[in-house]
Amino acid sequence: MLGRIDHIGVATDDLDGAIALYEGTMGMPVSHRETVESQGVEAVLLDVGEGHVELLRPLGPETPVGKYLERKGPGLHHVAYAGDDIEGVLGKLKESGIDLIDSEPRAGIRDSRVAFVHPRSTDGVLTEIVEPADEH
Amino acid sequence: MLGRIDHIGVATDDLDGAIALYEGTMGMPVSHRETVESQGVEAVLLDVGEGHVELLRPLGPETPVGKYLERKGPGLHHVAYAGDDIEGVLGKLKESGIDLIDSEPRAGIRDSRVAFVHPRSTDGVLTEIVEPADEH
Repeated sequence: MLGRIDHIGVATDDLDGAIALYEGTMGMPVSHRETVESQGVEAVLLDVGEGHVELLRPLGPETPVGKYLERKGPGLHHVAYAGDDIEGVLGKLKESGIDLIDSEPRAGIRDSRVAFVHPRSTDGVLTEIVEPADEH
Repeated sequence: MLGRIDHIGVATDDLDGAIALYEGTMGMPVSHRETVESQGVEAVLLDVGEGHVELLRPLGPETPVGKYLERKGPGLHHVAYAGDDIEGVLGKLKESGIDLIDSEPRAGIRDSRVAFVHPRSTDGVLTEIVEPADEH
């Protein structure tokens, strides 16, 4: 059902500092940078194996990531698992009584389709399901 | 330097409930279960792709994960990256001025060698470097 850990999301106020850490010090190359207005973030993807680190800088204090930073400070924000049939995954989760933030897939970074699962159903872990575009 | 996301660590008070969620609902098979006294946890590994979800139940309230649960509640606890030369990775991090919790590798789950990086050096993200045993 879920093929791999696609990425971990890291909330930060300091995107340049985080890039210096993950790319410069930890050796993960930046592979993509995108402003995702619908999610209120500037996002940077760095490659590690078949997965990614996704750095997230909020576009403003009232965005979800902005509120997260205000409440919890920088750190691990979410984990994303890749599946090749996101509707099937969401259907299975719904059948099992899991609360979804997105009951239907929406547009994610780099032409992916994504949906978030509510952390109240996943023991406090904000969980994303992602169906990558074919080329990723 | 770092080959992949080895696992994400999830802190929970309810290991059976978490296994039901990750194995039963999300379809990740349990591959290992171990009490790691040195880390004060009962840990369960579930497979997803070439990585794992590591569920962590504290052995008591005074353990690091017990204190984490008390302070922050259940949720994403750490991320671990795999490398095949943990001493080399730690040396590079030290050279770059990164604060390490473990300056030398110690025994981890399933005969791995692990070291934790201090979250004050990694933008709030508790980061583990793991050199898996040959067979994993």
